[in-house]
Amino acid sequence: MKKILIIGAGLSTGVLIDYLLENAEKYDWEITVGDISLETAEKKVKNNPRGSAIVFDINDDLDSWNIISKHDVVISMLPASLHHIVALKCIGLRKPMLTASYATDEIKALDDKARKAGVPILMELGLDPGIDHMSALSVINRIISEGGHMNSFYSFTGGLVAPESDNNPWNYKFTWNPRNVVLAGQGVSQYIQNNRYKYIPYHRVFDRILKRKILRYGDFEIYPNRDSLKYREIYGFKDIPTLFRGTIRKPGFAKAWNVFVQLGLTDDSYIIEDSENMTYRQFINAFMRYEPNVPVEIKLQEYCKNAEDPVVFEKLKWLGIFEDRKVGLKRATPAQILQKLLEEKWAMDPDDKDMIIMQHEFKFTNKDGEEKMIVSAMAYIGENQEKTAMAVTVGLPLAITTKLLLLGKINLKGVNLPVEEQIYKPVLEELKELGIVFEEKEYMVG
Amino acid sequence: MKKILIIGAGLSTGVLIDYLLENAEKYDWEITVGDISLETAEKKVKNNPRGSAIVFDINDDLDSWNIISKHDVVISMLPASLHHIVALKCIGLRKPMLTASYATDEIKALDDKARKAGVPILMELGLDPGIDHMSALSVINRIISEGGHMNSFYSFTGGLVAPESDNNPWNYKFTWNPRNVVLAGQGVSQYIQNNRYKYIPYHRVFDRILKRKILRYGDFEIYPNRDSLKYREIYGFKDIPTLFRGTIRKPGFAKAWNVFVQLGLTDDSYIIEDSENMTYRQFINAFMRYEPNVPVEIKLQEYCKNAEDPVVFEKLKWLGIFEDRKVGLKRATPAQILQKLLEEKWAMDPDDKDMIIMQHEFKFTNKDGEEKMIVSAMAYIGENQEKTAMAVTVGLPLAITTKLLLLGKINLKGVNLPVEEQIYKPVLEELKELGIVFEEKEYMVG
Repeated sequence: MKKILIIGAGLSTGVLIDYLLENAEKYDWEITVGDISLETAEKKVKNNPRGSAIVFDINDDLDSWNIISKHDVVISMLPASLHHIVALKCIGLRKPMLTASYATDEIKALDDKARKAGVPILMELGLDPGIDHMSALSVINRIISEGGHMNSFYSFTGGLVAPESDNNPWNYKFTWNPRNVVLAGQGVSQYIQNNRYKYIPYHRVFDRILKRKILRYGDFEIYPNRDSLKYREIYGFKDIPTLFRGTIRKPGFAKAWNVFVQLGLTDDSYIIEDSENMTYRQFINAFMRYEPNVPVEIKLQEYCKNAEDPVVFEKLKWLGIFEDRKVGLKRATPAQILQKLLEEKWAMDPDDKDMIIMQHEFKFTNKDGEEKMIVSAMAYIGENQEKTAMAVTVGLPLAITTKLLLLGKINLKGVNLPVEEQIYKPVLEELKELGIVFEEKEYMVG
Repeated sequence: MKKILIIGAGLSTGVLIDYLLENAEKYDWEITVGDISLETAEKKVKNNPRGSAIVFDINDDLDSWNIISKHDVVISMLPASLHHIVALKCIGLRKPMLTASYATDEIKALDDKARKAGVPILMELGLDPGIDHMSALSVINRIISEGGHMNSFYSFTGGLVAPESDNNPWNYKFTWNPRNVVLAGQGVSQYIQNNRYKYIPYHRVFDRILKRKILRYGDFEIYPNRDSLKYREIYGFKDIPTLFRGTIRKPGFAKAWNVFVQLGLTDDSYIIEDSENMTYRQFINAFMRYEPNVPVEIKLQEYCKNAEDPVVFEKLKWLGIFEDRKVGLKRATPAQILQKLLEEKWAMDPDDKDMIIMQHEFKFTNKDGEEKMIVSAMAYIGENQEKTAMAVTVGLPLAITTKLLLLGKINLKGVNLPVEEQIYKPVLEELKELGIVFEEKEYMVG
């Protein structure tokens, strides 16, 4: 019998916990779900005889040590900043740990310690990061093993509303953390193209979109991510001349979103004076010149040229940014005010479904010197508000990797990402059986 | 006999030290100039029998205590971040301290301690901050004492090249710290107009200029400063409906500078890959799309509309941004690379003179209910590379305030700015005698 501890039973953990509970009898597992709220943990366990719910408070140091010591493997679903504390305890107690979060520098610094203790700390086992690594490397490593040479890698991911629920002018709803969507792209975006480093400041990111048709889902646009360059090291092709990662949206999103960026509405660094008593119209007006005789709508079109486009203007109007309705948020930043407005309008209805879409584009020279291109794409539509595409694609790779680990099929120590065939091959195979399928096409180039 | 200690004998301290040395005999002062470099201190003392040069190292704690204890007043010309250390010692030893730097929160936190010790810590005694406070408050307090009510306050300052030395297409040269010029405006600019708070993100600041004619020097443009709102408290008119502070440049500067901001060249937060081997042309190209068949010049005009203006384009070309000449800076940020290029082109020639220009605009309702406006403006042209307008306008108010203090004419304790009549009145009077003159005009409004 193996004992699995899941720490944190928040919104996106249902699919992960269900998978483990469903497989518990077969593999002789006991599942403990720990959360700061016992009620939250109990809801996820659903009286399953193989499961138990407990209070887990990472701030209760002794209790945390105690609980972790009684399990064989730990899955941390806590906020990313807390993984470090869990990891130190797991290493001390020689318990493998798995998460769906980025391997931060703080986590990477534990590699040596974990390696010496013989403990695997497996990070980035969700969707993005997670499935993106696995699906990209399964192709890249095949290209290289067949004597090919990588020339270019583009990779795009998006969390969107499913086509059947796509009924607003933005073709977008919040299917994930709204705050992350509002702040997305801040900082400088860096990528490399034909060996030229390229830098895009935040206020130009939504100007610099790519366009693609993906699978049978029609047209999309892609804006650049901040961190493309770090994937050269992770994927082991330090000399690749072109590497670009981006975020997928429906066409027209970036042009309208850019109006908010140009105004400065996504800034989270300062408080708007008297935000509580301000209306949304006054909020927008605060970012433009004082001209009391010119309507806010007209000023906006003069100040942000994108807003002259009637399609963009319709999106803005639909959100209610010109309405004299009170914000009602105390001491709020511009980003918080914008988020509040968007949450009202971009909320998922109870019957709405979400969609994950991912596409990789690999250009390479094969062993015969031919230039080829492989496009590998996946789309997955959620079932309902619990089994969202996001929860499924984040939860399943983590659950499957935990199973592989407990079956003794993973032979890794220290901090690792799913860039090893022993992880990505069986995980991708099982994801395919479960309906998360990458379709691949190969083309001649030129 | 009174003993004056000046700590730090850097570039802009010549005028200050000269004033004190010239008055030393008359008032029976002894002047000690301390610097980390004895040679630098000696150069400023020029063998004056009333002066002496010493090594002063703020990191040598015991020695610093010792030297300060032997003087009656301390003027700190150290970098602003070090004033705090000097102030703590001055308070401990009950020695008055004066600086030309902003009263930071760290300094303000010493107010209580200084007050209890009976020690004046006089901050912001330079030009901006310094003369701006003094000249503004002399008018504001007069308006209020005559029964008037302030409705609006605009205030602009610029450090420019003098008209006779103004011979480049930017009408601008570095007359002060180049790094501060490159980074100017970053963050969000806040002001208030007719009781409406206004916010401008950095990437729009150079879009939001005002235009003014000032004195006999023709046309200028003004871009907004970050911190207008804090002056409501400093100047004691918390309810003023309109308050705006800005920086003065010659017309056309902001439109061209905005091209750099739009590209992202003023970012100081990350390192450009292989900056050492890059040319300036490649540097500019790194901020635009990869399109090897389109010249950088054409791409720039498409990407930054301001660059389509031939006057703007001429400014950019004159700087050499399109030249295939190596940057030669290791591990440099975009802002550092831009600064290097500008320092080559915007350097003052040995015979060049600089100019300080300042204008305040006060609108008020007088005791008879009439709406009036007072414009108060000052321009000062430097004599030579030592007696620059910047060194004179920063050094003299500090020197004069030190004299007033030693003559027992300042009765203040704790952290203070020159917002008290006992400081600004005599300082402005003496500045006038020395050629730093505010000209005032009054208008009816409407």
